[in-house]
Amino acid sequence: MDPRPLTIPWIDALALERGPEMISFAGGTPHPSDLPLEQLARAMNQAVSRDTLSYGASRGHPALLEALEGFFATEGLNASADRTMITSGAMAGIDLVFRHHLKLGDVVIVEAPTYSDSLISLQLSGARIVELPMDHDGAIVEELPRIAAEAPVPPKLIYVIPTFHNPTGVTLSAARREQLVSVARELGAVLVEDDAYAPFRFEGEELPSLAALDPGVIAIRSLSKIVAPGLRVGAVVGPPEVVDQLVHLRGGVDICTNVVAQEAVASFISSGEIHPHVDGLTKLFAGRREAMLEALATSFRDVGAEWTVPQGGMFIWVQLPEGFDTVALLEPALAADVAFVPGSVFSARPEHRRALRLCFAGADPDRIAVGVQRLRSALDAARADGER
Amino acid sequence: MDPRPLTIPWIDALALERGPEMISFAGGTPHPSDLPLEQLARAMNQAVSRDTLSYGASRGHPALLEALEGFFATEGLNASADRTMITSGAMAGIDLVFRHHLKLGDVVIVEAPTYSDSLISLQLSGARIVELPMDHDGAIVEELPRIAAEAPVPPKLIYVIPTFHNPTGVTLSAARREQLVSVARELGAVLVEDDAYAPFRFEGEELPSLAALDPGVIAIRSLSKIVAPGLRVGAVVGPPEVVDQLVHLRGGVDICTNVVAQEAVASFISSGEIHPHVDGLTKLFAGRREAMLEALATSFRDVGAEWTVPQGGMFIWVQLPEGFDTVALLEPALAADVAFVPGSVFSARPEHRRALRLCFAGADPDRIAVGVQRLRSALDAARADGER
Repeated sequence: MDPRPLTIPWIDALALERGPEMISFAGGTPHPSDLPLEQLARAMNQAVSRDTLSYGASRGHPALLEALEGFFATEGLNASADRTMITSGAMAGIDLVFRHHLKLGDVVIVEAPTYSDSLISLQLSGARIVELPMDHDGAIVEELPRIAAEAPVPPKLIYVIPTFHNPTGVTLSAARREQLVSVARELGAVLVEDDAYAPFRFEGEELPSLAALDPGVIAIRSLSKIVAPGLRVGAVVGPPEVVDQLVHLRGGVDICTNVVAQEAVASFISSGEIHPHVDGLTKLFAGRREAMLEALATSFRDVGAEWTVPQGGMFIWVQLPEGFDTVALLEPALAADVAFVPGSVFSARPEHRRALRLCFAGADPDRIAVGVQRLRSALDAARADGER
Repeated sequence: MDPRPLTIPWIDALALERGPEMISFAGGTPHPSDLPLEQLARAMNQAVSRDTLSYGASRGHPALLEALEGFFATEGLNASADRTMITSGAMAGIDLVFRHHLKLGDVVIVEAPTYSDSLISLQLSGARIVELPMDHDGAIVEELPRIAAEAPVPPKLIYVIPTFHNPTGVTLSAARREQLVSVARELGAVLVEDDAYAPFRFEGEELPSLAALDPGVIAIRSLSKIVAPGLRVGAVVGPPEVVDQLVHLRGGVDICTNVVAQEAVASFISSGEIHPHVDGLTKLFAGRREAMLEALATSFRDVGAEWTVPQGGMFIWVQLPEGFDTVALLEPALAADVAFVPGSVFSARPEHRRALRLCFAGADPDRIAVGVQRLRSALDAARADGER
């Protein structure tokens, strides 16, 4: 294997090199054929003008700020223009919020495991990463006061993905949401909510976002999953004084987000086309989750594996029994034309070595069945290899 | 005035609020009517596909990497795919290079004055900023060894804009280019060259870029001025081992650049349409520079002002006599419907208070004449106000 650190883009690139036979559960994205091509082609075509080819406002394109205010109101989130900044994808928002709030040596609390690219950003910030364990109801918020008290300095920021969590797929319970907001306030820590997957709920009751519970929460929202990742549009919503500072800093980061894309996304949202699109994706993803749960039951029960059953989103987190190493499984899996992300990628420490993240959202049910079979064959090959 | 720190986007926003009567010399961009709208509308339209709406490679869209290799070869810069990463505008490249190379307390050497948004990025990095003075031949490289020796720690990075410098418009001489590359090597400092304006030369001999002189230089290149700022496309070119690390880190920064925009820019470059477009802009800008030099001679000679005479690019740097404060001039200027950027915005220290940056590239000659007259009236009003 290549000696450089494992990352999702790198695994994606390795998978891509294998050609069309590859079945990838690695990325966290709809399949290209699920994207609203016709609507976006029309919207992009209409969006190109002398204005949108010029520099845009650092806060965001006014038409998109307006469209997002209405769109986020449906989840109970106040995204008035003074509370909102458009970012070049959600990751750019996460990264700028971390840079603004965290200095070298500060303590940040994250779920264990958590989104790998957010860990890269945190490592760049020089902050000390403290992990909050999870169970099937999300982060174990009951342990947060103790963990915060034991940290070398009081935590400055808490970063969570409460709904259909990346990478585990689990959802923070209603009671823990209330509790998390309250503990964060008591600790005086900035609470950052990354909710990229929440729009895709298959079952269970709708839960309030943390940002809907507390206007002091900084909400990171992605348009990559519900519109298109290649357009790189996301948003940060939070207290006006924080957002003002982010808008100022971004002059030294990327000045503004691609304006043509912002105008096109605004028209896709305000035309209402986004709603049937998200509904359609949710139905597709629900069917794919079923296919993956069935395939796992068929191929992975007898090895003693366990996995989460997400109520929405894109990911299932599989735990292999003690002794397995999913980093070592990656190479035989890729050779068998199936890709996944090893669990250790989602931790700042060398943990989760027997876990793996599977994205069910990007493949048809029959491909999912074949892919999971291939993964089992790769596992058997790796085991046989290990026993030799 | 608003209490927040002055920045170019903020001045732009204030100018925009004044409406169409405003003549702005503040931004650093072609006028929207100068942009290649028809060609880009066609290119964007053809660029939208299921592939370009999906996540792209962190290093960059292969078609654009290929187009840029040929394009940069014409300036003698080796931009092979292993040496290049596409960024979301040049600023995103500058920012990532700073973040990668600079830690809290490191020393970075910049020209005095230098690009204001790069200063914001440096302030975020926590590096200590040491300034290298300039004269009419660019940075006074002869003083670099002494300044480096006097710095609290040896400088880690040197950031320069050698050609048609922002904000002064001056160009680093050929002899100093050779010397700068050599001193940077001796110091073991990373040399970063930001050359956003170099494509627009009106007169004088072509000079080699620093990156053409030394493949160890990290070259920042902008597509904003020569294609369109609203698309947010730039590039970093440098040693493969450095670029590999930037590609890895960018997962935690913005994952990838808008892929539709990359495909459209690739087709604008590889079709050859970019060459007559840049030639046309260069002729336009040359005429606008003439108009501004004439207007300055008419309206600013008798107050004892001095200004640079750039051989290309977009900016003239005006020095008012002792005692003037161009921050105080901004409000009366905006009220008179003319905008500029005060000199102090371009320094980490409260200096250049009697200087101002004028962008001549974005207005027609007759508007330039009117705008400079308005600026003189604002100056007279500010002086009368100061004497009361």
